[in-house]
Amino acid sequence: MRRGVFHGPARTQTQLAVTADDESWFLLNASPDLRQQILATPELAPVAGQRNSPIAGVVLTSGDVDAVVGLLHLREFHPLRIFATRAIRRIVTEENILFRTLERSQPPAEWCDLPLGKEVALAAGLRSEADAKLQCTAIPLAGAYPEYVDAALRKTLAPEEAVIALLIADGPKKLFFAPGLPGNSAGWKAHVRASKLALIDGTFWTDDELIAVRGAGRTAREMGHLPLSGSGGLLNELQAETATRRVAIHINNTNPILDEASAEHRAMLDAGWEIARDEMEFIL
Amino acid sequence: MRRGVFHGPARTQTQLAVTADDESWFLLNASPDLRQQILATPELAPVAGQRNSPIAGVVLTSGDVDAVVGLLHLREFHPLRIFATRAIRRIVTEENILFRTLERSQPPAEWCDLPLGKEVALAAGLRSEADAKLQCTAIPLAGAYPEYVDAALRKTLAPEEAVIALLIADGPKKLFFAPGLPGNSAGWKAHVRASKLALIDGTFWTDDELIAVRGAGRTAREMGHLPLSGSGGLLNELQAETATRRVAIHINNTNPILDEASAEHRAMLDAGWEIARDEMEFIL
Repeated sequence: MRRGVFHGPARTQTQLAVTADDESWFLLNASPDLRQQILATPELAPVAGQRNSPIAGVVLTSGDVDAVVGLLHLREFHPLRIFATRAIRRIVTEENILFRTLERSQPPAEWCDLPLGKEVALAAGLRSEADAKLQCTAIPLAGAYPEYVDAALRKTLAPEEAVIALLIADGPKKLFFAPGLPGNSAGWKAHVRASKLALIDGTFWTDDELIAVRGAGRTAREMGHLPLSGSGGLLNELQAETATRRVAIHINNTNPILDEASAEHRAMLDAGWEIARDEMEFIL
Repeated sequence: MRRGVFHGPARTQTQLAVTADDESWFLLNASPDLRQQILATPELAPVAGQRNSPIAGVVLTSGDVDAVVGLLHLREFHPLRIFATRAIRRIVTEENILFRTLERSQPPAEWCDLPLGKEVALAAGLRSEADAKLQCTAIPLAGAYPEYVDAALRKTLAPEEAVIALLIADGPKKLFFAPGLPGNSAGWKAHVRASKLALIDGTFWTDDELIAVRGAGRTAREMGHLPLSGSGGLLNELQAETATRRVAIHINNTNPILDEASAEHRAMLDAGWEIARDEMEFIL
């Protein structure tokens, strides 16, 4: 990439923003590159003359570093609602005192519970919940807490609150969002099938991808990522869901699908997948 | 700025990298924009064919969010030494479990004590300390711990380890680095005078700058930043240190010196100061 010979664009880290009215935007996770991403997105710029951003809230799918660090980019004088499972909220707010800076905002960031399997209105505040067009449902994915959560803490957290997919609905139109998909659970495929658009974990192409690079370590599955290829991989698992627009996101820099000259890239397109890149826009 | 009418460039957050040999680089603090800044700096790119970066270490001056968050950009498979006071190390590693991800590196990040007032070799590892060209001395600045550190924790931390300036020496050539300068302590001016280059806290122009914007809040001094202007401000305090090249860094977006058409910008230049911008390079 640095020598200019790689076939494919540079990418920032996984980040999505959704809106139903072009006024209030909700971020799905908060990437470490969030500041740069906001600056590159005119829709997320404050209205002229105001300091407040159109970003009304953030919905978290896990406690992964690349899902939560960007919250610290949002800490300055900015009203913000953060939707998360109770476990993720606890990890972020009670086990990481840096995130107390979010309480400095005026008003302070407001944490909202994301119960499993239950629709929650994505609204900028309590008063606008009845009018909210976007609904969000947390789908438990039977994933594990990040490695940085030690065994003692892990015992006090509900396992099903570790990793979720999000089902974002604007009436009958649904978006399925799962940057980390362990593939252990049942049921997630039905949600993909019922969605117009699915943005799904494309972290690794093969199960032993990182081991091949580093010589040791954990498999993709052990890290909570169903690989794209192979028996039981994501391409096979979703072969029947062809009515849903499928986009691979959260792609690791070891994943050969990033190389547009590769057979793996070709295989993704042949299987009807898209490969996420910066500045993609989707209209449901 | 967004409408293209502001007189002055956009800036990423405060970040400096130093080297004596163009091979091993040491970051002074780790800004939230660090990933973007590394990608914009060819000197910090890994040598072709290697995954390791020339970044050998990071030296922290405080526990401020904008000084430490960037560590999380350095968490992937990257040997790294982190120099900090014991108190800052404790805040980062014991009170923020996200930073345990730094222990995943192979080898894991190595924390090195930065005792106050004592020269420490900035070396990539223990074995290279005898050959290290750069020496670093922590200068206590009598600042306070960040607001996110609560009273109970604060009581267990040595107050003088909260905020430091760094004196980086390559033989007789010295650099003074203080992105946060509370101005309470004695002695820091002598270090500026003895340095060829001083990169100093230019967060605020006036003491009540943020109060004027927000209508309430704390003064610059209460936030640990000597303002640039006014009686006892930085310009007055360093009037005599004209032999030292002085550059204002860590400039808040409320500070009028950023506007190149402003009287305050002019006043900085007239007083012999430079105003930091991205991609500046200094050779001592």
